[in-house]
Amino acid sequence: PQPLRIAVMPGDGIGPEVVTEAVHCLELLREKHQLPIEWTRFPWPSHAWHERHGEVMPEDALSQLAQYDAILLGALGDPGPMDDPERYLLPDSVSLAPLLDMRKGFDQWVCERPARLLPGARQYLADDRARDIDMLVIRENSEGEYVGQGGRLRQGTEHEVATQMEVFTRRGAERIIRYGFEQARLRADARRRDGNKRDFPTLSGERCESQVCVVTKRNALRYWGDMYTEVFEQVARDYPDVATHHELIDAACMKFVQAPWAFDVVVASNLQGDILTDLAAVLSGGMGVAPSCNLNPDNPDMPSMFEPTHGSAPDIAGQGIADPTAMLFTTARMLEWLGRQDPLLAEAGRELYAAVAADLAQNGGTRRDTRNIGDSVLNRLK
Amino acid sequence: PQPLRIAVMPGDGIGPEVVTEAVHCLELLREKHQLPIEWTRFPWPSHAWHERHGEVMPEDALSQLAQYDAILLGALGDPGPMDDPERYLLPDSVSLAPLLDMRKGFDQWVCERPARLLPGARQYLADDRARDIDMLVIRENSEGEYVGQGGRLRQGTEHEVATQMEVFTRRGAERIIRYGFEQARLRADARRRDGNKRDFPTLSGERCESQVCVVTKRNALRYWGDMYTEVFEQVARDYPDVATHHELIDAACMKFVQAPWAFDVVVASNLQGDILTDLAAVLSGGMGVAPSCNLNPDNPDMPSMFEPTHGSAPDIAGQGIADPTAMLFTTARMLEWLGRQDPLLAEAGRELYAAVAADLAQNGGTRRDTRNIGDSVLNRLK
Ligand SMILES: CC(C)[C@H](C(=O)O)[C@@H](O)C(=O)O
Ligand SMILES: CC(C)[C@H](C(=O)O)[C@@H](O)C(=O)O
Repeated sequence: PQPLRIAVMPGDGIGPEVVTEAVHCLELLREKHQLPIEWTRFPWPSHAWHERHGEVMPEDALSQLAQYDAILLGALGDPGPMDDPERYLLPDSVSLAPLLDMRKGFDQWVCERPARLLPGARQYLADDRARDIDMLVIRENSEGEYVGQGGRLRQGTEHEVATQMEVFTRRGAERIIRYGFEQARLRADARRRDGNKRDFPTLSGERCESQVCVVTKRNALRYWGDMYTEVFEQVARDYPDVATHHELIDAACMKFVQAPWAFDVVVASNLQGDILTDLAAVLSGGMGVAPSCNLNPDNPDMPSMFEPTHGSAPDIAGQGIADPTAMLFTTARMLEWLGRQDPLLAEAGRELYAAVAADLAQNGGTRRDTRNIGDSVLNRLK
Repeated sequence: PQPLRIAVMPGDGIGPEVVTEAVHCLELLREKHQLPIEWTRFPWPSHAWHERHGEVMPEDALSQLAQYDAILLGALGDPGPMDDPERYLLPDSVSLAPLLDMRKGFDQWVCERPARLLPGARQYLADDRARDIDMLVIRENSEGEYVGQGGRLRQGTEHEVATQMEVFTRRGAERIIRYGFEQARLRADARRRDGNKRDFPTLSGERCESQVCVVTKRNALRYWGDMYTEVFEQVARDYPDVATHHELIDAACMKFVQAPWAFDVVVASNLQGDILTDLAAVLSGGMGVAPSCNLNPDNPDMPSMFEPTHGSAPDIAGQGIADPTAMLFTTARMLEWLGRQDPLLAEAGRELYAAVAADLAQNGGTRRDTRNIGDSVLNRLK
């Protein structure tokens, strides 16, 4: 069969360091299982590329990437060399543009960020029930607060007015909420298989094996808040087996700290999802272990993109000390996703996930450098 | 001298219960120190008022309240009787409208929410440095995401588009950021007086006794994010003695959990401030102890409003079990504020604060009902 093609983008900062470990794992797994995958590196570090070409990615970047079945991204965001502030040329909003361009250009409308506090991961909360944290935060990734519409009137004067438009569509709300319910069912199925019982209260007082919590700020941002609420109630009717819940974003953040183990699937808007997923990441051990992916579930011609939740971390870049765990979990998720086309890949994804989790359980507490962690996972895969 | 006039609005849910305790304390303090204050109750519970009059407050509510020097509010938000879902008439966006109307109508552009993890308060974080949490979150309270502009196009159809406009002015940014720097200085002065040393790194590597951290999401919401950044840098030049720091909202939430003791003054937009203050509340013991106020610092003809961070909590209303601590701290803050006109009041505010803190330190861990806690504070004041 035609091998599946992966575009590997190391990116900026610690990106290349953690991607190196991911590629080692992919090489080993490919050899071991004869996986039908191949990959190409796209060396487009924002700053260097910008200095040479005046852009942050080649103009035809998206059409180049469109040829691939998946994009594996380290991290983007590099304002310039840390030791020479004069050369800090690129504001974040420029050097990160490719990230948002890919999400938008390939209509990767689902951002999935699971949060489980795995054995070995750092626990920030005092309550030991934190060990039961097991939620999936699903962020709407294609519209809302991130549409980039707005501007600055009378810029730089004392009369300046800056506007930013939030645009939400019912279609956008419907597809992400429905996706959330589907995931809730899949998660309940998986738990049932594993004999791992959880339950959630429904409004009628019964218990359900799964739950979707939708987050808005409908008491203040009522236009899209009301629309989301209506769509949520409507879609929920198709899933009587799933409990439903609504939280305001402020209360949701509070409850993430007070009782994160009470959440199952959480669906949130682009910005509110961005906030909740950083919180969820820290509750499940921190940025070093938090995977992420940007999916287009319905158009096979558009690649999905797999990047850890963390950024390029310029403060520790180049030192070989970044934790590649998040990148490796993300790579496992990519293989699982490609497994929709070949079950061999899904299996390899689960194998990689298990190896990374086992390494974390054994060595999570000890200080190790990037290469160490990568090698330890490789050894488990051998 | 003319007594200062307080409009007491018990409001909805647990509001009246906690306000009762606050009024007892005010009565005692007035008697004890001959405080020049008087108050009037405004019984406008949203739901009941709405059923009787078709509105949530009298039409001339704002002009009635404008006669007062301060508003002491319990909580607003009451969709209707809990036991009769058919009568849930008021969506949050309606029953909470008076809250936003007051903030806007009286141009209460500062929302101050201090977060200190006081002895006796519940600690949610595992790290014991949480005991050093001592920050002041200042929320822009007059514009931004809360301007209420937007709408629903093709409402209810599959082609619906909901928009919500965020509007930020340079004047709005400038005054709140400057307010933040002023507070940072005042806090440093107070710490110096108390011999309580803290320091923060400046950009130049020196150490400062105070810090302002401004929060935006400028890498994605760049129009107002860039404006805020520019204004921040400009205002900071007037405060070389205050360290400056910028965080993105997602990273800020993460760092609130990872190292909240590293923050001093935090300035954030209306929505981002709403989110950060709920998080800060939980990190400093939860909603039961988190005070808040909505200030108009420059127009003496417009009353400021004092309400705890918590809402009306309809789920526990009527049971007499709501914790009045947040309300009492809030009342102390009101007295301090009125103390700008009469030092006697500022002193009474400090006395009330100390009594509430002492009660918390002694009894914080034990389950007590509303009346118990109020009485215990009263006894300390006697
Ligand atoms: C880098 C930034 C634009 C991005 C976002 O806000 O989406 C990041 O925070 C993320 O969560 O992937
Ligand atoms: C009730 C709601 C409108 C309000 C807000 O969002 O400002 C509340 O959350 C608060 O923080 O005071």
